[in-house]
Parts: sequence; C-alpha cells; structure tokens
Amino acid sequence: MKKATFFHAGCPVCIQAEKSVADALDPAAFEVEHVHLGEDKGRIGEAEGAGVKSVPALVIDGAPFHINFGASLEDVKG
Amino acid sequence: MKKATFFHAGCPVCIQAEKSVADALDPAAFEVEHVHLGEDKGRIGEAEGAGVKSVPALVIDGAPFHINFGASLEDVKG
Repeated sequence: MKKATFFHAGCPVCIQAEKSVADALDPAAFEVEHVHLGEDKGRIGEAEGAGVKSVPALVIDGAPFHINFGASLEDVKG
Repeated sequence: MKKATFFHAGCPVCIQAEKSVADALDPAAFEVEHVHLGEDKGRIGEAEGAGVKSVPALVIDGAPFHINFGASLEDVKG
C-alpha cells in the first residue's frame, strides 16, 4: 500500500480537489491521509519538507503535486 | 464509469504527473484517457473548453485540475 497525503486548508478549491482527485485515487493501492493545515499547523513543516508550496496538494511517494491553486503555504501559516 | 482525461505534452513534469496521479486513479471508477496535445493539436480546443490553462491537467467530470506546471497551453499551441 502506497502512502498519499492530501494537504489542504478547507478552501473551496481544496474541497473540489479533495472530492475529485484525492478521493479518486485507487483505494486498493493507496492509503490517503487528509491533513487540514489550517487546523493542524504542526504539520506545515512536513508539507514544506515535501516541497509543497500551495494547497491543495497531494504528496505521493514523497513528491509534491499541486492541484490548481487555493492558497499559498505562507498564507496558511499566517 | 466516470471519464477522466489527462492532457499533457510529454514534458518531464507531465510524465511525473501521469505516473503518479493519472495512473493512480481508481480503475474501478474511472476510464482515463491520455491525450498528448503536442501530437494531437486538434484536441487543444477541447482542453481549452474544459478550462485547461496549462499541462499536465486532469479533467474529471468536466472540471479542470492543473497538476504542477509543465507548459502553458499557449506554448503547446506554438
């Protein structure tokens, strides 16, 4: 089982990406964790470490995939 | 079966998104078509009509999801 982490901030763009892309990943192949960085600011460093610059973003096998643009990570920190 | 269309232009960013995201969609739920817009310029209008501004992008249920940034659609046209 591969690990995928969906980082978001609850924004409309995030929710659309969550429903259409993150929730569309093959459940037989991926364990998808959803992390709301606005509510869980302690994990912002983990997202940054994986190369995430904005949300929504999926990190799959350690690589960041930014999906459209909801908010910059800097804005989520503020 | 839902339809998903992965628009790309063969660029390294496109190939990474294809392997990690487009190929990760649930095969039980999605029929994923891969369209290389550099080789199939006749479909650029279809991508534009769905709101695609850059590649790689996934169109799911008619909504565009840009994944990172490989090239603008304008560059693919050129």
